[in-house]
Amino acid sequence: MLLRTSCYLEFDIAVHTPFIFMLKPCSGSQQWIISEEYRHTPMLPVFEFSDPYGNLCQRLIAPPGRLIINTAAEVMTSDSYDRLPGAPFVDIENLPDSVLSYLLPSRFCESDRFANLAAEITSECLPGYDQVSAIEHWVRSNIAYEMEGSDIQLSATEINLRGSGVCRDFSHLGIALCRSLSIPARLVVGYLHGLVPMDLHAWFEAYVGGRWYTFDATQSELRGGYVAIGYGRDAADVAIFNQFGPPSNLIVKHIAVEKIHHN
Amino acid sequence: MLLRTSCYLEFDIAVHTPFIFMLKPCSGSQQWIISEEYRHTPMLPVFEFSDPYGNLCQRLIAPPGRLIINTAAEVMTSDSYDRLPGAPFVDIENLPDSVLSYLLPSRFCESDRFANLAAEITSECLPGYDQVSAIEHWVRSNIAYEMEGSDIQLSATEINLRGSGVCRDFSHLGIALCRSLSIPARLVVGYLHGLVPMDLHAWFEAYVGGRWYTFDATQSELRGGYVAIGYGRDAADVAIFNQFGPPSNLIVKHIAVEKIHHN
Amino acid sequence: MLLRTSCYLEFDIAVHTPFIFMLKPCSGSQQWIISEEYRHTPMLPVFEFSDPYGNLCQRLIAPPGRLIINTAAEVMTSDSYDRLPGAPFVDIENLPDSVLSYLLPSRFCESDRFANLAAEITSECLPGYDQVSAIEHWVRSNIAYEMEGSDIQLSATEINLRGSGVCRDFSHLGIALCRSLSIPARLVVGYLHGLVPMDLHAWFEAYVGGRWYTFDATQSELRGGYVAIGYGRDAADVAIFNQFGPPSNLIVKHIAVEKIHHN
Amino acid sequence: MLLRTSCYLEFDIAVHTPFIFMLKPCSGSQQWIISEEYRHTPMLPVFEFSDPYGNLCQRLIAPPGRLIINTAAEVMTSDSYDRLPGAPFVDIENLPDSVLSYLLPSRFCESDRFANLAAEITSECLPGYDQVSAIEHWVRSNIAYEMEGSDIQLSATEINLRGSGVCRDFSHLGIALCRSLSIPARLVVGYLHGLVPMDLHAWFEAYVGGRWYTFDATQSELRGGYVAIGYGRDAADVAIFNQFGPPSNLIVKHIAVEKIHHN
Repeated sequence: MLLRTSCYLEFDIAVHTPFIFMLKPCSGSQQWIISEEYRHTPMLPVFEFSDPYGNLCQRLIAPPGRLIINTAAEVMTSDSYDRLPGAPFVDIENLPDSVLSYLLPSRFCESDRFANLAAEITSECLPGYDQVSAIEHWVRSNIAYEMEGSDIQLSATEINLRGSGVCRDFSHLGIALCRSLSIPARLVVGYLHGLVPMDLHAWFEAYVGGRWYTFDATQSELRGGYVAIGYGRDAADVAIFNQFGPPSNLIVKHIAVEKIHHN
Repeated sequence: MLLRTSCYLEFDIAVHTPFIFMLKPCSGSQQWIISEEYRHTPMLPVFEFSDPYGNLCQRLIAPPGRLIINTAAEVMTSDSYDRLPGAPFVDIENLPDSVLSYLLPSRFCESDRFANLAAEITSECLPGYDQVSAIEHWVRSNIAYEMEGSDIQLSATEINLRGSGVCRDFSHLGIALCRSLSIPARLVVGYLHGLVPMDLHAWFEAYVGGRWYTFDATQSELRGGYVAIGYGRDAADVAIFNQFGPPSNLIVKHIAVEKIHHN
Repeated sequence: MLLRTSCYLEFDIAVHTPFIFMLKPCSGSQQWIISEEYRHTPMLPVFEFSDPYGNLCQRLIAPPGRLIINTAAEVMTSDSYDRLPGAPFVDIENLPDSVLSYLLPSRFCESDRFANLAAEITSECLPGYDQVSAIEHWVRSNIAYEMEGSDIQLSATEINLRGSGVCRDFSHLGIALCRSLSIPARLVVGYLHGLVPMDLHAWFEAYVGGRWYTFDATQSELRGGYVAIGYGRDAADVAIFNQFGPPSNLIVKHIAVEKIHHN
Repeated sequence: MLLRTSCYLEFDIAVHTPFIFMLKPCSGSQQWIISEEYRHTPMLPVFEFSDPYGNLCQRLIAPPGRLIINTAAEVMTSDSYDRLPGAPFVDIENLPDSVLSYLLPSRFCESDRFANLAAEITSECLPGYDQVSAIEHWVRSNIAYEMEGSDIQLSATEINLRGSGVCRDFSHLGIALCRSLSIPARLVVGYLHGLVPMDLHAWFEAYVGGRWYTFDATQSELRGGYVAIGYGRDAADVAIFNQFGPPSNLIVKHIAVEKIHHN
């Protein structure tokens, strides 16, 4: 399916503020970026770099006043949710080197504390894809989706205690459970066509059967239309923006994902 | 200055042909890509990767028939040619690790054979920027620009013997001479506003005074308007496309660079 | 000073167990590895790779029975503890790209929750080295060194609540406090000459004044003799070994660091 | 087989001279470095870095006088020469990204000029391993081994014209022929047990059947005992040392490879 994604951010900046943005969807095995725009007002020097996960990031220093970031992309992405029940667990010794760091615990995914729960949830599953499916289903059934919540970002153990969270939290819990079973898992931030209410979204991927598969515990009906912007171990790695110094106000955020119809 | 660049390539493909393209200008210290398009017909799976120099490349397999690649970008780039006469030579021990491989000889830049010529050309120069300027001037004065030439790609030593070449050849000779003085130098392929006749262009950069500076032995009047697509040791590294198997016909190539006027 | 370090590990393995070891000290700006040994019994295929932080890691699959890993190195390292009071804070926009990920919160260093405490501790300091010194001093004064502790690894917030910990915990707390002030900080695991009781050690580095400086809140008297093995965001990244599957018993661990006297 | 390799280099340095050394054999799929020494006299600051091919390199600045570099390693390596006649050609679209740059022409391997010769040599071969074998055999039969030669380093086209060369030249010609058939090929520099006369050696690897295989056109009887030090596109990338500025005299070079017998 052909999608047009857009993200409009408007900040009210009080003092010179360094920002790091991560707003460029990347062409990959599941999506192809046909066109892309990245405009900012005022016009400022921007330096682009790749972070350790391969995400393209942009650094800039915003002067006092308004800062507007306006990005858009035309993306060809998969029509359907790619699934493979039965895909086997990959033995540690056969994992590619580049995947190994996704086995380790991280800021919001304390996988070192979930071994018992994960064993319980997946006790009747074949190792691999089916374990991740059971985890995805367990998170969907046991965590309530609740947008009003803590002001501070909670971790998987905290979310598990609280029993509620947003898309990012659902994913962190799923990731922590997977890693505790030695299944590499990572957070993805991006767009999802048809998301209600529309916003940026977060889901997760698990490495089974020799490749990464998509999982999303927040959606009851699994379908295509995902557009990845960034990958990382958890939300600490894939913030859409990081700012340093006294916090600036994000006064407008507008996200849109529309289907483009070929003529 | 704000430029719109475009590149249209049309191939007549006889058999399934793997291609690697390098057609995405990258945001860097000297240019910012505001928008970008990359369309191909027919629609095919494309895999993107970074080559060892950090250039974004695209792999695809073209089926028999027409293959059209159509890219465009809106780029903010420097109005003027950035110069710094007197910028000092950087001692080898102070070069960043990432720059060291640009000291070595490469396919088309046999720097191991230019020590005497380089010493002669730069005998009265301060080490650094001024040596590169003298080399740029010497190439401009001693090599004739000649589009009709050899069908095979010539190297710096061959170009020096022949005394004529195109932009790529001018740059290879400049690079080989710089490296023989232990000045890191690299080839850049991209667009130049106002180039006559309009085509893709090649120039070179030398590392002096702690950063890369642009040099172009083909232009008598140095001005801004450069848009880099790819960097490498020489043209072997930065082909706009590589194809494998029986060669396909490139039947249309159309390059354009236009100034965009703000309202 | 010239040191000989050694690490002897003996495991009792019940079932085939994949391991990842990180036991090779690396030559860097502060230490030079003159010689190195890495022997394992039984002789097994070992695959070496670099993790995302540049640490050399070794993967192997241990069969049931005894696994002995025996490493040693002769290392030239600094005689003194390298300090620079007054070294300035580096503005975010001037940090090298490679340092940026050390600003983010991580598994055991929840820097997102330490802004107030860090501000309080450093309220009278010049930004930069002096802030880190104040943090190091605060941790030394407020956290009790206590080897008997929790079986599970605690994070900086947990250690701060508990008020006691080991070298790794001291470092995590120091790192979290630094990052909350936008000072990049990382964990180092390695050897320290004269450590009592002798064991592997952990300390931290902070990036101020344009380079990494060593800090160690566990030592009241700062001296040289540090030998780094691995670097990372926290202990989740720099485990001396990770094993997967049912845990094996580490039945012997013997660490030694001796001064070598030239004749 | 278990080998002890050593390399002793002694230079007579006239003026402060920056050096880059590449003298550390690396643990890989075919060899495991059990112990390693790297001593230099006088004791100087050395900075280690990884080059773009993953080779560990050491930078130092030698003061006037003697510079001695003395390295040794104990290495477990393969007893036999690993061969797989019939291993298939890997289609370009299935090559790993990291292998692609070994398809391109390089300083001493002008693969763009060998298409006809390669086609002729391999006309009756199955694509893949057998083509490389035919190339290895052709080079062995058509190029004379001759140590006394040109003072300057020759390229594959020049060696082909001259009809003689040393191990490095044999390999360059083999590599150029492979690449012209779209088979990735790279130069390896290292040690070979039993080489007569003993010296550092160069051979090549070709990527067929999904992995790298060793080829050596200089040896009529293929056997094990290879120890790799560095990999690259050709000798321009894998010099054991590069020096900059007025050349220093290498006054002693002593290379040894001995079998270690277990008791």
